[in-house]
Amino acid sequence: MLTDLFSPSVQHSLDLVGIFVFAISGALLAVRKNFDVFGMTVLAEVTALGGGVLRDLIIGAEPPAAFADLGYFLTPMLATLLVFFLHPEVERITKAVGVFDAAGLGLFCVTGTMKAHAYGLGLTFAAALGVATAVGGGVLRDILAHEVPSLLRWDRDLYAVPAMMGATMAALLIHFDALSATTSVIPVLTAFVLRLLSMHFHWRAPRAWHRRSAAAEEV
Amino acid sequence: MLTDLFSPSVQHSLDLVGIFVFAISGALLAVRKNFDVFGMTVLAEVTALGGGVLRDLIIGAEPPAAFADLGYFLTPMLATLLVFFLHPEVERITKAVGVFDAAGLGLFCVTGTMKAHAYGLGLTFAAALGVATAVGGGVLRDILAHEVPSLLRWDRDLYAVPAMMGATMAALLIHFDALSATTSVIPVLTAFVLRLLSMHFHWRAPRAWHRRSAAAEEV
Amino acid sequence: MLTDLFSPSVQHSLDLVGIFVFAISGALLAVRKNFDVFGMTVLAEVTALGGGVLRDLIIGAEPPAAFADLGYFLTPMLATLLVFFLHPEVERITKAVGVFDAAGLGLFCVTGTMKAHAYGLGLTFAAALGVATAVGGGVLRDILAHEVPSLLRWDRDLYAVPAMMGATMAALLIHFDALSATTSVIPVLTAFVLRLLSMHFHWRAPRAWHRRSAAAEEV
Repeated sequence: MLTDLFSPSVQHSLDLVGIFVFAISGALLAVRKNFDVFGMTVLAEVTALGGGVLRDLIIGAEPPAAFADLGYFLTPMLATLLVFFLHPEVERITKAVGVFDAAGLGLFCVTGTMKAHAYGLGLTFAAALGVATAVGGGVLRDILAHEVPSLLRWDRDLYAVPAMMGATMAALLIHFDALSATTSVIPVLTAFVLRLLSMHFHWRAPRAWHRRSAAAEEV
Repeated sequence: MLTDLFSPSVQHSLDLVGIFVFAISGALLAVRKNFDVFGMTVLAEVTALGGGVLRDLIIGAEPPAAFADLGYFLTPMLATLLVFFLHPEVERITKAVGVFDAAGLGLFCVTGTMKAHAYGLGLTFAAALGVATAVGGGVLRDILAHEVPSLLRWDRDLYAVPAMMGATMAALLIHFDALSATTSVIPVLTAFVLRLLSMHFHWRAPRAWHRRSAAAEEV
Repeated sequence: MLTDLFSPSVQHSLDLVGIFVFAISGALLAVRKNFDVFGMTVLAEVTALGGGVLRDLIIGAEPPAAFADLGYFLTPMLATLLVFFLHPEVERITKAVGVFDAAGLGLFCVTGTMKAHAYGLGLTFAAALGVATAVGGGVLRDILAHEVPSLLRWDRDLYAVPAMMGATMAALLIHFDALSATTSVIPVLTAFVLRLLSMHFHWRAPRAWHRRSAAAEEV
């Protein structure tokens, strides 16, 4: 299959890890919002699978992969169970969760780009859908939880930009016919490392010009 | 047609009743939010048809049923008209509206499961889409009205769980090849009665463990 | 192509103008919400293209036009760039932006209706999707920005009603087989002028009856 980076079983295992960690972030937000166990499950499923479902609806891959693979569907429930019983412990290792989340971000921005391209989209759009695959679930999570999407906020460490870098590099590799199991590791790692650096150094994206100078005056 | 529980005309009439009552809840929320008559119509349409449209997009049934049947489209407008002129009276019979809403919930979780299965989805996914058919419109309503989705809130009587019971029973009946016009009444009634009981006894779903004990201490 | 009002290149240029102005309104809201440059881009893209993508998903035109034409995709980025560097100047000409926005509204409600009809939808549904094409992006913009959709609010000048008029007229022209490059200008201009009038005279739609009289008493 064109969308597999590695052997199908390795790819599938990596997918499940990414889904699991994304689901953890959904379930944790549900706990903070005082939702019940059903709300936790919904938020876990949507965070983990929402980006991919969005991509599949747009490229016309129906039913979406999330509705054809039981592993994708049950993994967020496992994450919900874990958070239900152990959420103070899970909250305590947020930093570790963040590292796995960065890995999921790197993985999904690349596989999302590849799947969209395999369905015939141009490389620019494929890369855009790769980013949407990686970050879409988090946006849907925040909308359902009635929060300003953390993706759009100025006061959050860069999240979409690493995904954009990874997706763009994957698209370039496809363009130069150089994408293989080995080379595909490069964009995944790039997005992963950029996200880790952005968390560590609290990198931010700039706001509109005037607004920025006004903020500077406040300080 | 595989997705018909009863004769097509009986099924269609039941659908319209469910759509009408769901639309009432959308129009009433629009009044509470101080929206104008156009906002009332949008919220009525989305509440009544949103869950089914979501399901049809995911299973690839395009255009969705809501865009192919004038009755589905006009019924929410009728509900809007009623609420526009008589909303204090409609508010007064909220309890009766709740009973019909429970009937719609029971009906749609079963027909939604059947339609998703008829389009080739596995039974677990079909049941999940059955629940989405029944509760999706209400979630979209709350998002459009800029409210925390009442489906996810801890302090609301069980709504999704009855739908999950009904959808699961319908999936089991399909699995054992036992779904017929007669037997399909069982999951519909189960979801209906469970929802009525949950309204009457104010059943709630549990929240995450630590959170629950903290809440207990507050009392 | 059935969905072209004018020669393809004229139609395409008009589309780009509409997309550009819709994108401006998205980017300006992002600045007001204190989003960073990436959030501005997302809001610009969603505002400009969201309505058309929604329509294309529903009629089964996959991938949506927005994912097949680089001009559609890059125009919102241009608008973001402009707002990023010059947003105080852009804010100052809000009135001019409003005029162009009204033009986009008029154009998209008609082309949306035509495209939906070309994909086999009935005229009522085609008109409804024409309205959704014109106003859907703005609703998605407000949801992403965590605001009450301005489309639904009572205290906003009529926005959807002009689009409904234009879409209905376009559907009637199709019904009477009278839609041509020349006649299609009529519904576009109708929606455009109605929106300008509604901005100038601050036309509002009524709210539910009881609510209206209560509001009258307050005054």
